[in-house]
This record gives sequence, C-alpha cells and structure tokens, in this order.
Amino acid sequence: MAYERNNIRSLSPYVPGEQPQDTRVVKLNTNENPYPPAPGVLEAITGVGADALRRYPSPTASEFRAVAAQTHDLDADQVIATNGGDELLRLAMTVFCNPDGDEGVGGIGETWPTYSLYDVLARIHDTPIVRVPLEEDWAIPQDFAGQLNDAGCRLAIVVSPHAPSGRYESCDRLRQIATEFKGVLLIDEAYTDFARDDAIDLIRGEDAMDNVLLLRTLSKGYSLAGLRFGYGLAHRNLIAVLDKARDSYNTDILGQVAAVAALNGQEQARTSCAKVVDERRRVGDELARLGWWVWPSDSNFILTKPPAPGSGQNARDIYESLKAQGVFVRYFDQDRLRDKLRITIGTPDQNNTLLRALTSRT
Amino acid sequence: MAYERNNIRSLSPYVPGEQPQDTRVVKLNTNENPYPPAPGVLEAITGVGADALRRYPSPTASEFRAVAAQTHDLDADQVIATNGGDELLRLAMTVFCNPDGDEGVGGIGETWPTYSLYDVLARIHDTPIVRVPLEEDWAIPQDFAGQLNDAGCRLAIVVSPHAPSGRYESCDRLRQIATEFKGVLLIDEAYTDFARDDAIDLIRGEDAMDNVLLLRTLSKGYSLAGLRFGYGLAHRNLIAVLDKARDSYNTDILGQVAAVAALNGQEQARTSCAKVVDERRRVGDELARLGWWVWPSDSNFILTKPPAPGSGQNARDIYESLKAQGVFVRYFDQDRLRDKLRITIGTPDQNNTLLRALTSRT
Repeated sequence: MAYERNNIRSLSPYVPGEQPQDTRVVKLNTNENPYPPAPGVLEAITGVGADALRRYPSPTASEFRAVAAQTHDLDADQVIATNGGDELLRLAMTVFCNPDGDEGVGGIGETWPTYSLYDVLARIHDTPIVRVPLEEDWAIPQDFAGQLNDAGCRLAIVVSPHAPSGRYESCDRLRQIATEFKGVLLIDEAYTDFARDDAIDLIRGEDAMDNVLLLRTLSKGYSLAGLRFGYGLAHRNLIAVLDKARDSYNTDILGQVAAVAALNGQEQARTSCAKVVDERRRVGDELARLGWWVWPSDSNFILTKPPAPGSGQNARDIYESLKAQGVFVRYFDQDRLRDKLRITIGTPDQNNTLLRALTSRT
Repeated sequence: MAYERNNIRSLSPYVPGEQPQDTRVVKLNTNENPYPPAPGVLEAITGVGADALRRYPSPTASEFRAVAAQTHDLDADQVIATNGGDELLRLAMTVFCNPDGDEGVGGIGETWPTYSLYDVLARIHDTPIVRVPLEEDWAIPQDFAGQLNDAGCRLAIVVSPHAPSGRYESCDRLRQIATEFKGVLLIDEAYTDFARDDAIDLIRGEDAMDNVLLLRTLSKGYSLAGLRFGYGLAHRNLIAVLDKARDSYNTDILGQVAAVAALNGQEQARTSCAKVVDERRRVGDELARLGWWVWPSDSNFILTKPPAPGSGQNARDIYESLKAQGVFVRYFDQDRLRDKLRITIGTPDQNNTLLRALTSRT
C-alpha cells in the first residue's frame, strides 16, 4: 500500500552529479574546488574531543554566526547557519511559500534554465513554480519581477553567478529586481567566491533591503563540499523567521568548528579561487581555439558548446567519450542545454588532461 | 514588512534544553550519555583528509546504510540516514501528512504528553495534530489507533521508551497499534539502547509490516549528540519515498564515517548503556528513599515527583535550587508535568552530586 502524498508519489527526485569512487577519475562534473581547504579546518576538526561529541552542539551555531557576521560586516542576527545551502533553499520555501497554491499564487518564481534542485524542493513543498526564460545571453529579462508579481509568487530565486551558464548579474540589476518584486528575493551566491563581486551591499548599510536573502556555501570557494555547511545572510527579520522553521540542532559540532576555521582562513580560500579564475580564462581560451563556443563565466565552471554538429561532434557523444577516458564533465539533457557541456575548472594538470582528451577526439 | 506564512508567524518555536557552556555544570537536563563514544569514532574523524572534505560525500551515505543494515539484520534499502533524528521526523511529516488539513484530516496523531518537537514540526508543515491523552501510568490508551483513524490522521508518532516518562511499550502492543492504524506508525526509538527490548521485529521477517518506521539516533546510546546523526528503518517502500524528499546531500562525510565507526563499536555503546541502566536503578532507589515518586523507566532519564507540596517542596523550586547549585535537570511547565522533574542519569559522581544537592535542601 502507498502511504505518501500525491506530490511525493509523482516526484522525480533530484539527480546529483555522478560521484565516482575511483580517485583516478578527473572529476570536472560537480563544481568542487580542486584545491584543499585551509589547514586550520583540519586542525579544528581533529581538535574536537570526545566530550564535545557527546554533548549537543550550540543549536544556533553561535560562534559561527559571530565569525560570519565579522567576515561580512553584518550583525550576528543577520546570519543563519544551515546544513548545506540546500537546507536554506528548503527553509525559504517552507517559510515564504504556500503549499497547494494554484497558477503560481504563493509559489516560487525562477529563471529558466536554473539550478534544478529548486524545482524538486518546490514540488516536495507542493508549491507552484513560475519559470521565466532567460534571454539568449542568459540575462534575466527586464520584466522578471513583474511577471512574478502578476503570478502572485512569494519567493523569487536567482542564482548569481548563474548555474549552469556562469553569468554574473550586477548588484544594481539585482537591487532593481528586489525593489520591484513584492516577495522575498533569494540570491543563490554559491559561486560568488569566483565572481568579480557579490550582492552583499543589498543587505548592508542605509539602503539595506528587507526582502533579500543571500545564500552562501562553504562547498565551493572554501573547498568543503564534504562538510555540508551553508549559511544565509539577510535582514534580521528574515533570519528570525527562517530560524523558527529550521530543525532545532541543524548543524553539528564538527561542521561548526570547521566552518569557523574556514572563514578564518580567508587567504587560503582566496588563493585557491584566484588560481581557478586564472585557469578558467586559460581553459576558455583553449576551447575557443578548438572552435568551441564559450560563455563568459564568473564561476568555477564554464558552459561551452562544441563546434557545429556537421563536424561529427555533439555534446552528448563528447560527454560519453570523455567519460570513457576517465574525464567526467556534466551533460544536461534538457532544452537549451543538450547541445552544451558544463565543465568544472580543475587544477592545471586536470584541465590539460581534459583538453588533451578533447583534442585526441578531434 | 512580514513575508512569512501565517503558520510560521504564529509559531512558538521549539525550545531546546539549556546548553550551558560552563563545563563545571552537572548537566542532567538533555539526556546526553555521560560516557564517551567508541574510540574508533575519533579515529575515523581524524582519518578524514583534505581531499575527502573537498569532495561531495555519498548522497545516500551508502557505507553507513550497509553497516546499519548488517547491524540490524536488514537490507541496505531499509535504511535512511538523516541529519539527526529530527530530520527523519520532519521528512515523515513532509511525505505522509497534508498541509492545510482540517480537524485532523491528513495530519499527525500523537500521545499526550510527548516529545514537544513533534508539535512544532507539525505546525511548520501546517498539518493538523490530534492528541490522545496517555493513561495515568503513561500507557497508550487501547483506542489510540481508532481515535486516529476516526480523525483521518496519516501519521502516528509514538515514542518508546516514552519521553518524558521513560515508559516502555512492548513490541506486541506496538504491533497492535500498527495493525489497527490506517496510516504510517513512526516509533521514535531515540532511547531504545537503554531499554529491555526494541520494536525491530515489526519490520523484520515474515510478519514485517509495511507501515512501521523506526527512528534511531546516535545521540544517546552512542554518545554522539554533537554529531547530529540519526537514521530510519522500515520497509523498503517507505524508505524509498522518504529518500525522495530528503535534501540531496543531507549527511556529511565526517558524520558518515563517525556513524559507521559508532555502529562498529557496539561494545563500547553497550557497556556505557549498561552502566547508565545500573545507575538508573540506584538513583531511582535513592529518590524513592527520600520520599520521591519515581516512574519505572527504560530510558536514560527518570521522571520523578517530589514529596507532597505540604513538605515545602515543589518541582519548580527544586529545579531552580538545583540550578543555583550547578546541577541542571529538566522542568516542563505544562499539564501533568509541572509537579515533576525529568532527570538524566549521569555518571555515579554526577548522580551523587545531584542526590547530595537534593538532600542538602531537605
């Protein structure tokens, strides 16, 4: 007998990128940082003794909040710590969106394409989804907020830099959307550490907006995808209501001390991100030289389109061929993406292996 | 401006027990295990290197599932790993209960009193709650399932051993409830490692039931409250639908390896639980000798009622007086509980400090 709700029964769950256990694989498919986290992170983890493991952690991750506030020049009550950025996305839907809405009323608004997890979470919450197609160059259309307002959306989700294109949206453009939109604008800044700038000015200072929620994660810029630690930054009123809805002890003591050490190890993170940015430029140039179309990226990946199919290459075949050679990249079998590949930027060695594998095909 | 849903606005969030940072405090208020976790746990954590932290963990905690299956003589697809037991509770409501139900339809059924988090999670999900008062001796009334069926509940939650009384419900009685109830019966076995037996027979073998979900945690019996690691055991169909609704990477690499080591360190857990059970008997006897009423407990705490108020003692005053002496116990200001205290069983030294503090008052 089936006991689950209809929306769960009909749900196609989120499909994470492949996580091969073979460490010889050149893994350029899930946007991990190729460089290690700050040494202080490992020290902090090994410093957690049996007694700290035995006890409950701080329910609010209070030390982390204080350090994050200092890092971003905010107050501690403008920070919420979450079990990965995923938890913050889910919390935002739980808190701001109505289940069982119709025709967009009370639901989320998003660009299309976007990070595919948003839709899965919305379907789990059973809240409506309004999709606004991006422009040809992946820019957010001018009437994005207007369309969402017309539909009655309560939460808009924008990822900047955008996934999977890498496009950066300026703080001014995001402020314009937040000003026009009548609900909460969540800006998923998972990849912001690789970008020219972030949107933190929207929640800081005299012009601070009360409806903007920034999502940050330690998975990418801080090389800690294994840790599952994310956080939200916003006006204290938004943080307070998100706090009411999170699981009571949502982050553990190991994650908390590691996250504190990661934020305190800014220099390591900045150095590794700078190296990735340098390689992003080089890999993009090399691909362009091979006749691939490369979209400008502010992220740690690039979206790229192989030369015209007439040359005997198409994206899926290349993806399969690379995989057979032990190089994993990401292929999305969906509109506007199935003729492209998303390639994570690795170390120079990994990137050279990728480029060689592509060249040996051509 | 307020952006949150009405149910969130009106929500009184869960209040965790006090977590004083002063390590001199004798902390008998949140049911932590007084003994350390198995040494293998610390070894496993320190063995996680920078590369494992940098990469995403197994989204399904596959190694943990295999070890848990072996531990409980089940199949791996009968196990789900969660970010603490709390996440499993939330998942069960998300998957089985309807938001915006009326008069109990589609909601949860619970005993009263019970673990207070259930109500908070139900209010966040905005699903109705049906409360069935326990008998005088904290037994579940015979018509519990019938009342829930009449109201249209989709999920029944029973905690056994019961919190906050410590009462054990037999496997036979739980099977009877599961047989009668038309929805899913979640049995919260957070404290089962201190009990005479568990309910695992309900999901094993030829008589296995397809509507029973057991909640387990490493927080109590395995001395790992700081880790936030729980798991569910059930028929594979129930696990499959819960799996669809969990956050995609809900447990981290440190938690996964520590949890595997904890299950592999059964002996340490059994020894520490046995010591707690011995002390539970001794503390109960001592309290009874002082004229306190002590309910039989199968857990790592006891619910106890001080001698008649005529003697000048009431539960809240005693709680405050103990706290002033650096001994934290739990006081619940609610019907049927405000004349009682819930006391976690600590080490012999801690328990002696408690008993001395009580005696010095009398």
